[in-house]
Amino acid sequence: MTRIAFIGLGIMGLPMAVNLVRAGHEVTGHNRSPARTARFAEQGGRAADSVRDAVAGAEIVITMLPDSPDVEAVAADVLTARRALWVDMSTISPVTARSVAAQARDAGLRTLDAPVSGGEQGAVDGTLSIMVGGEAADVEAARPVLEVVGRTIVHVGPAGAGQTVKAANQLIVAGTIGLVAEALTLLDAQGVDLTPAVEVLSGGLAGSAVLDRKSANMLRHEFAPGFRVDLHHKDLGIALGTARESGVPLPLGAVVAQLMAAARAQGHGDLDHSALLLVLENLAGGSRHGR
Amino acid sequence: MTRIAFIGLGIMGLPMAVNLVRAGHEVTGHNRSPARTARFAEQGGRAADSVRDAVAGAEIVITMLPDSPDVEAVAADVLTARRALWVDMSTISPVTARSVAAQARDAGLRTLDAPVSGGEQGAVDGTLSIMVGGEAADVEAARPVLEVVGRTIVHVGPAGAGQTVKAANQLIVAGTIGLVAEALTLLDAQGVDLTPAVEVLSGGLAGSAVLDRKSANMLRHEFAPGFRVDLHHKDLGIALGTARESGVPLPLGAVVAQLMAAARAQGHGDLDHSALLLVLENLAGGSRHGR
Amino acid sequence: MTRIAFIGLGIMGLPMAVNLVRAGHEVTGHNRSPARTARFAEQGGRAADSVRDAVAGAEIVITMLPDSPDVEAVAADVLTARRALWVDMSTISPVTARSVAAQARDAGLRTLDAPVSGGEQGAVDGTLSIMVGGEAADVEAARPVLEVVGRTIVHVGPAGAGQTVKAANQLIVAGTIGLVAEALTLLDAQGVDLTPAVEVLSGGLAGSAVLDRKSANMLRHEFAPGFRVDLHHKDLGIALGTARESGVPLPLGAVVAQLMAAARAQGHGDLDHSALLLVLENLAGGSRHGR
Amino acid sequence: MTRIAFIGLGIMGLPMAVNLVRAGHEVTGHNRSPARTARFAEQGGRAADSVRDAVAGAEIVITMLPDSPDVEAVAADVLTARRALWVDMSTISPVTARSVAAQARDAGLRTLDAPVSGGEQGAVDGTLSIMVGGEAADVEAARPVLEVVGRTIVHVGPAGAGQTVKAANQLIVAGTIGLVAEALTLLDAQGVDLTPAVEVLSGGLAGSAVLDRKSANMLRHEFAPGFRVDLHHKDLGIALGTARESGVPLPLGAVVAQLMAAARAQGHGDLDHSALLLVLENLAGGSRHGR
Repeated sequence: MTRIAFIGLGIMGLPMAVNLVRAGHEVTGHNRSPARTARFAEQGGRAADSVRDAVAGAEIVITMLPDSPDVEAVAADVLTARRALWVDMSTISPVTARSVAAQARDAGLRTLDAPVSGGEQGAVDGTLSIMVGGEAADVEAARPVLEVVGRTIVHVGPAGAGQTVKAANQLIVAGTIGLVAEALTLLDAQGVDLTPAVEVLSGGLAGSAVLDRKSANMLRHEFAPGFRVDLHHKDLGIALGTARESGVPLPLGAVVAQLMAAARAQGHGDLDHSALLLVLENLAGGSRHGR
Repeated sequence: MTRIAFIGLGIMGLPMAVNLVRAGHEVTGHNRSPARTARFAEQGGRAADSVRDAVAGAEIVITMLPDSPDVEAVAADVLTARRALWVDMSTISPVTARSVAAQARDAGLRTLDAPVSGGEQGAVDGTLSIMVGGEAADVEAARPVLEVVGRTIVHVGPAGAGQTVKAANQLIVAGTIGLVAEALTLLDAQGVDLTPAVEVLSGGLAGSAVLDRKSANMLRHEFAPGFRVDLHHKDLGIALGTARESGVPLPLGAVVAQLMAAARAQGHGDLDHSALLLVLENLAGGSRHGR
Repeated sequence: MTRIAFIGLGIMGLPMAVNLVRAGHEVTGHNRSPARTARFAEQGGRAADSVRDAVAGAEIVITMLPDSPDVEAVAADVLTARRALWVDMSTISPVTARSVAAQARDAGLRTLDAPVSGGEQGAVDGTLSIMVGGEAADVEAARPVLEVVGRTIVHVGPAGAGQTVKAANQLIVAGTIGLVAEALTLLDAQGVDLTPAVEVLSGGLAGSAVLDRKSANMLRHEFAPGFRVDLHHKDLGIALGTARESGVPLPLGAVVAQLMAAARAQGHGDLDHSALLLVLENLAGGSRHGR
Repeated sequence: MTRIAFIGLGIMGLPMAVNLVRAGHEVTGHNRSPARTARFAEQGGRAADSVRDAVAGAEIVITMLPDSPDVEAVAADVLTARRALWVDMSTISPVTARSVAAQARDAGLRTLDAPVSGGEQGAVDGTLSIMVGGEAADVEAARPVLEVVGRTIVHVGPAGAGQTVKAANQLIVAGTIGLVAEALTLLDAQGVDLTPAVEVLSGGLAGSAVLDRKSANMLRHEFAPGFRVDLHHKDLGIALGTARESGVPLPLGAVVAQLMAAARAQGHGDLDHSALLLVLENLAGGSRHGR
C-alpha cells in the first residue's frame, strides 16, 4: 500500500486513479473542477480541495494534466511534498520536463516523466504503455504503482527521455495516418477496391497499427474520437519544438504538422486524428464516391 | 498442369519459375541474358531462346521484368500468344499496365497486372503477397498458378489496380521508413536509450512492420539489402507519377521521394531502403554516437 | 531576309510568327487546326497544309508547341528540312530536347532549344526572354531572328540547357507564388493591413517580380490568366522529372508541385497560377474577409 | 529635439542610436555589456548604467534586443517611464509583442512594434525599412524619429502587426533563398552555364531581390554574413509559431525551416543565410564543380 496523490482527474486521470484505489493504494485526488474530484470520491478515492492538501504526506505524487503550462502551474504546490517521488504522466515538452525535474531536485524531490499511450480505453483497462525518463532506482520504486495503470513500462533514459519518446510516438503516428490518407486518396481516385487493397497493404511491409486500427473508420468516413486532432496538433508542436531545440530537421514531421494544422483550421479539431484523410481528400478536390 | 511461359528470370523471377516447375507445371522460361535461362534449365525448366519461342502454345504467360519500358519491349512478342492469359508481375506504372492491357485485348489476349511484395525471400518461399488488377474471371483462372508463388492473392480492381496498390504500398513503406528515421535521429540527439524506445514505440499505435523488421538494422547501421534504394526510388517515381495523373496531391509522398533521391545521390543506391536514416542523420549534422 | 518555317500558331506562336513577317522575313506557317493557319495568312504569312510543306526549303524552322509529345510528333517531318537550323521554342523536357537534338544531328540538321518567358504580352510585343541551349555558332546564326521575337537572348549552355533553365524558372516562379500566398494568408489571419504590408515586403530582400506583378491581383482575388495553373502544373512535372533524372532532390519544388496539383484538382486549372493562394486559404479554413 | 532612451546597442542598435544623436536628439543609451555603452558615449551619446536610469524622463524609449525573452526581461524597467512611447524595434514574436503592449497600456505607456529590415548597412546608412504595428496616432508621433533611422516607414496594422509582417518577410526571404538554391543545384547538375542562367532568370517573373543580391555570392560559394543562419533559424521559429497560433498551415515555410535547421546542424550557423545552398548541394551528393 502506497500513499499516492493524484492531480488531474480528467478523461485519462480519473480511471487511472480509480484503478490505483482498487489495487489497494491510499489515493488522494484533486482536480481543478470540483465535480471531477467529487466523482473520484464516489468511486472510493479521497478528495482534496487543493494540490497542496492532496500531496501532503504522499509518497508518490502523480500528475496527469493537459499541457506544459498546467504542469508548471502546479509545480510549486507539488514541491511542498518533500521526499516524495513525483511521477508526471502528462504529455508535455521534454524541455519543461527537464526544467521541472531540476526544480524538484533542488527542492529534495525525485521525479520521473512517464507519459502514456493507449488512450481512454487503455486508462480504463489499466493497459497503457508508459515511457519513463529518470533515474533507474526511481523507476523501480514507482514500478509497482505504474504496473497498476499500465501493461508496458519501459525505462528509456534520463529525465525528459520519456517525453521525447512520447513526442517521437506522436510524430510517427501522425505521419503514418498521413501516409495512409495519401494512399487511400490515391487508390480511390484510381478506382481501386479499397477494402481488399487495405487488406493486402496491411499484410506486408506497409502494415502498421494505424492501418489495422484506423483504416476501417477512415473508409467509412467515421471520425468519432479516439484521439482528437486538437490534441495531436498540440503534440506535434512539442515534437517539432524538441527537434528544433535538438538541431534535428524533420522534413516529414514538419509537413504532417501542417496537415494536422489544416485539419484543425478546417474545423475538424474535435474529430479523431484519422480525419487527416479529410484534408488530403480536400486537396484532391474531393473523394470519388462520397463513401 | 498448366503450360506456362515465364519471361524474366532475375532475382525474383527465377525462384518463382522454379516453384512453378516443382508444383508440376510445364514452364518454359526465357531471360535476356542466356546464363539465367541456363540456370533455369538446370533446375528443371524448359529453356527458350526468345520471348516468341517461350510463349508459343502457353496458356499463361508470366512476365517479371524490371520496369515499364521492359514490359513494353516484350509486348509485341507476348501478344503472339493468342488466347493466352498474360499475367504481368513486374512493378510498373499503372498507366503502362492499362495501355498494355488494352493492346492485349485488341490482340485477343486476357491480362492481369499482378505485382508482388515480399522480396527475394518471399519469392524463394512462395509466400509473396500478390495484388491483382483485372477481370474477376481471369483472376480465378490464374489463381491456382498464383497460389504456387504467393500466399496472399487479392483482387483489388480492374486493369491497373494491382499496380496502383503496389505504388501505394511503396509510398507507405518509404514514408514509414522516413518517419522512423526522423524519430530515431531525434531520440538519438536527445540522449534517449534507443533499444527500449523502439520497444515501446513498436507496441502502440506507432507500431509498424517497418519498425518490427527494419529498426534493429537501422540501430546497428547495417544496410545490406533487402530492397535497394535505387529500386524504391524508381517505385516512388511511379507513385508520384500516378498521383500526378490522377489529380491527387501527395505532400508527404513528395517529400519522402526527395529524401530517397538524396539517399541515391549521396551514394547509397545499392543499400537497403532503410538507409534513408543516413540522409536524416546527415541533415542533422551526424549522429550522436557512431553506433 | 531569312526563309523561316513556323510550326505551331497558338496563343504564343501566332504573334511571334507575325512579328517575324513584319520584320521582313519570309515565313511559312502551319498549325494543326487550319483556322489558326488561316489567321496567320490573313496577317501576311504564307500558309502550309502540313509540317512537311512548311519546312520545305526553310533555312530556320521554329516550333512552338504545347508539350514534349507534340514536338516528338512533328520531328520526323521537321527532319526532312535537311541543312536547316531547327529552333524549338516550346517548353518541353530537357531529356526530350536532347534526344530530339541527337536525332536531328544524325539527320544533318542543327538545333537549338530556345524556350521563352514573358507570356502572351511578351510574344505580341516581341519582348520575350529567350534561354538558348546549343552550339554557340548556331546561337549566333539564329540571333537576328530571335531578336525579332525577344528582347533578352541568353546562351546558357549545350543542347537541353535552355529547357533546363526554363524548368528552373518555373520552379522558382511557382515557389515564389507559393511563399507569397503563405505570407498573405498568415498576414490576413493576423489582421494585418495587407496593402501596406505588401508595400514594405516588396521594398526589401523579400521583394520579387511575383510580389510586384501578382500581389495586387491576389489581394483582389482576381485570377484571370496570365499563365494558367494547368500549364504551370505541366512545367513543374518537367522540373521535377529533370531533377529526378539528375539526382537533385528539390524539397521545396516537390511541395509546391503538390500545391499546384491541388489547385488543379480543386478546379482552378484555368485560372492564373497565382490562384495558388486559394489552395493555401483553403488549407487555413478560408480567408478572414472574403476580400 | 526629442528625449530618447535607447536600450540595446548591438550591431544594429549602436549605429541607429548614433544616427539619432547626429540628427540632434538627446539620446541616452544603455547596453547590458558596458563596453557597448561606452562606445556609444564616445560617439556623442549619453551613457546610462541601467535600463531604469536610461528611460527616466524619456519621451520615446527604443528597444533593439535579440529575442522575445530579452524584451520581456527589460519590460518592468521600461514601464517605469510613465507616459513615454515605447518603440520596440527588436524582431520578436507577435504574441510577445501584443502581450508587452497590453502590459504597457495598463502601466500608462503607449507602444509600437517596429521591427526593421535592411541589415547592418541599412542601420549605418539610416535606410532601414520599418514595419510598424500600433495606433496610427502613435505612429505619427514616432515618425520624425523613425525617419532618422529608416527610409521606408509603413504602418501595417494594430499592435503585433509589425512583427507579423517581419515574420512574413523572413518566411519569404528564406523560402526564396531555398528556391534559388534548388534551382542552382539543378542547373549545375545539368551542366548549364550558371552566370548567364542567373542573368536570364533575374530578368523575368523568377526575378527577386535574393537573386539580385545573393546569387553572385552563392555562385562563388562565399558565405560571409550578411544575415546569419542562426538568426534566420530563430526568425523562422517565430514565423511558424505565429502561423501555428493563427491556424495557418505553411507547407513551404515548414520545409524551408527544416532546411535552415539543417544548415545550422551542419555547422553553418555563422554563415550568411544563403549558405542554404550548401544543404541543397549536400542533399544532391555534392556540387558538380567545386566552384
